[in-house]
This record gives sequence, structure tokens and C-alpha cells, in this order.
Amino acid sequence: MRTDTPSADTGQPCAAVRRGRPRSEAAEQAIFTAVEDLMADGNTLSELTIEGIATAAGVGKATIYRRWPNKEALLVDVVSRLEEPIPAPTGGGAREDLIAMVDYIRRRGLAKRTRWVLKAALGQMQTLPELYTAYRERVIRPRREVGLHLIRRAVAEGVIRDDLDVELLGDLLMGPILYRSILSEDSDLEDPELSRKLVDSVLDGVAPR
Amino acid sequence: MRTDTPSADTGQPCAAVRRGRPRSEAAEQAIFTAVEDLMADGNTLSELTIEGIATAAGVGKATIYRRWPNKEALLVDVVSRLEEPIPAPTGGGAREDLIAMVDYIRRRGLAKRTRWVLKAALGQMQTLPELYTAYRERVIRPRREVGLHLIRRAVAEGVIRDDLDVELLGDLLMGPILYRSILSEDSDLEDPELSRKLVDSVLDGVAPR
Repeated sequence: MRTDTPSADTGQPCAAVRRGRPRSEAAEQAIFTAVEDLMADGNTLSELTIEGIATAAGVGKATIYRRWPNKEALLVDVVSRLEEPIPAPTGGGAREDLIAMVDYIRRRGLAKRTRWVLKAALGQMQTLPELYTAYRERVIRPRREVGLHLIRRAVAEGVIRDDLDVELLGDLLMGPILYRSILSEDSDLEDPELSRKLVDSVLDGVAPR
Repeated sequence: MRTDTPSADTGQPCAAVRRGRPRSEAAEQAIFTAVEDLMADGNTLSELTIEGIATAAGVGKATIYRRWPNKEALLVDVVSRLEEPIPAPTGGGAREDLIAMVDYIRRRGLAKRTRWVLKAALGQMQTLPELYTAYRERVIRPRREVGLHLIRRAVAEGVIRDDLDVELLGDLLMGPILYRSILSEDSDLEDPELSRKLVDSVLDGVAPR
């Protein structure tokens, strides 16, 4: 048994702890590409099987099971790879970092509209409760936590008042762009100034001063 | 052929223009109840048939087709009935009317969580593109238009600045509660002061003054 993939021992479907030899990375890449190709051929996530993925990737089923305990873990990794990383601090203060986070959600929304495989994966995932739960835990929750952390920092820096609930602030700052990205399919996400306008409006208010 | 149901002639699946004799209203009520009962028995919207609905309601298929041109039109009416009407003006000015509209969305979100049939209908509808399109047109669009109208009035009354895009204002004011109601399933919607806090925060801003 090969031991170059720690994930095979821990059962952790986490890309960050998997570091293999080039040959192992090539297998992984072939598996990811196989899933995307199978989806592009019209297979839904629930129709995919480990066997079918292994055949399409030209690897044995054991090669897949060495990396992922089950199909759900593999598929969450496939979708996670399609996501851009969370933006790093801009160095420009809390307001700029909030704008960068909102803009990250805007660009993610645009990508979802234009990248077919991402749209299909996210759309189908909501009908697969187990996969969706794993995705929320692995992808959505860390992003939400970064957003709330930025808001707490903005309060600490005096950019935001300290008498408001952080969850309420999260919905005020991230809700509009999440609504526009996820629920309002024909809304404008192209405007590169949108994120700045949204954050400035929430911070400064829309009532006349 | 009975002529007490104008909708049979125009093919309009619009409850507002249908006014029948008591006997006709009783049939309509039986049809609505039959759909809800069939759903409660575990039938999905796509599994329902006009024939099955007619049998469950104790009416002939022709009685259904006299009122609705097809299953989709009937189902949109079924779901529309589960929705509360759009709130009337409060008489308390633009800020109060905006709070009433946000609170309407909050209560609708709560109802969706607690009323099984509404949750099931809305959840399944998103997988039925034709039905969802009709629902957006019949239910979502009028509500959105009322919201945008309120915002324009708030601008005219000087409650909101006049240099911001009305769509942006709509997302700022309605996005947070829509996000919380629709996407964030375990978030708090119980707080009766939530809507006032949201609107006041957007109008006055969350930055220190």
C-alpha cells in the first residue's frame, strides 16, 4: 500500500493536508478532470459513481478511495477547487477589506453565471442534502467567518458603531451582494464599482445627511 | 357549458378576476384542498396530475380545465393563496412603510419555515422552471415592484438621498431580509424589532456619526 497520501490514513478529504509525489498529483488532477468531463457530458452529481469516475480518469477505484472516503467527499473537493480563495487583507484598513470581501462575493457570483460546471455543481448540490451540508461546512462557513471577523475588526477600528449585533451587520453588509449573486439571476454584477457603492452606502447610510 | 367562471373564457389563471356562484367557489376550494392534501401525502408537484387532483377533489377534470389552462397555472394559484397579501400603506410615512415591507418579508420567511406545504411548494418549484417562471411573474415581481415604488416615494419625500440607483437601494433595503429568510435557514427571524433595526441601519448608516 502506498503511503504518500496522508489523507488515505486519516480519511480527511482536505486538499490542504494532501501532498503526494508528482505521480499522485497527476492522478488527482486526472480524477478532478474526469468529474468535470462527466458533468460536461450531462451526468448529474447524483448519477456519478466512483467506478465511472475511476474509468474516466484512467485510475483504479482504490486510487480514489485512498484519497476520499466516499463520493461526497470527492465532489466537495471538486466544487471547492472551482472556488477562488478568500481574499487576503488589502492592507488598506477595515473599509477596504470589507469592500474586497463584498467584491469577492460579486466575482464569485459572476463566475457562477459564466462557468457552466460551477453553476451545475452548485445547483445540483442543493438537491443532495449530504453533499450540501459538507459544502456549507467546508466552503460557505469559513467565508462567513472571515466576513464576521472583518466586521468585528471594523468595529474595533471605529469604522463601524459598537452598539449593533454582528450578525445583523453581516446581513447588512453581505446580504445585498449575496441576494444579487444567488437569488436575482438577471441583476447586474458587472459593475466593478458595485462593491464599493454597497459598502459605502451601508457605512454612511442612504438618508440625506 | 357553464359560464359563471370568466376565467374559463379568457384562460387567465388569475384569482382576482374569477367570481363564481357559491357552488363554483366550493369546487375551487375543494381543488385547492386536494392539492394540499396530495402534497401532504408526499406527492411532489411534478408528480401531481390534473386527473389525480380531480379525483381527490371529487370533481370532473373539465371543472379544473374550466378554471385553469394547465397544471402549472393551477399550482401557481395554489402557492399564491399560501402567500399573505402585500401590506397596505401604514399612513406613517416612507420609513414606516419600508419597515412594514421588510417585516412582511420577515413574516413570510417565518411562515415558510413553519408551514410545511409552503416550504415544500417553494422548494420544489425551483426545480420546475416553467412553474417557477410563472410564480416569479405572478408573486415575486409585484412584490418587488411595490418595494421599488416605496423606495422611489422615500426618495421623493426626502427620506432617502436622490443620488443612488433605485435597484441598489432595493438590494440594500430588501437584500438583508431576503438573504436571511431564503438562504440562511437557521438565522433569527423571530425578533419583531428586526425589520426596524434593518431599515434604520440602512437609512442612518452603521458608521459612527
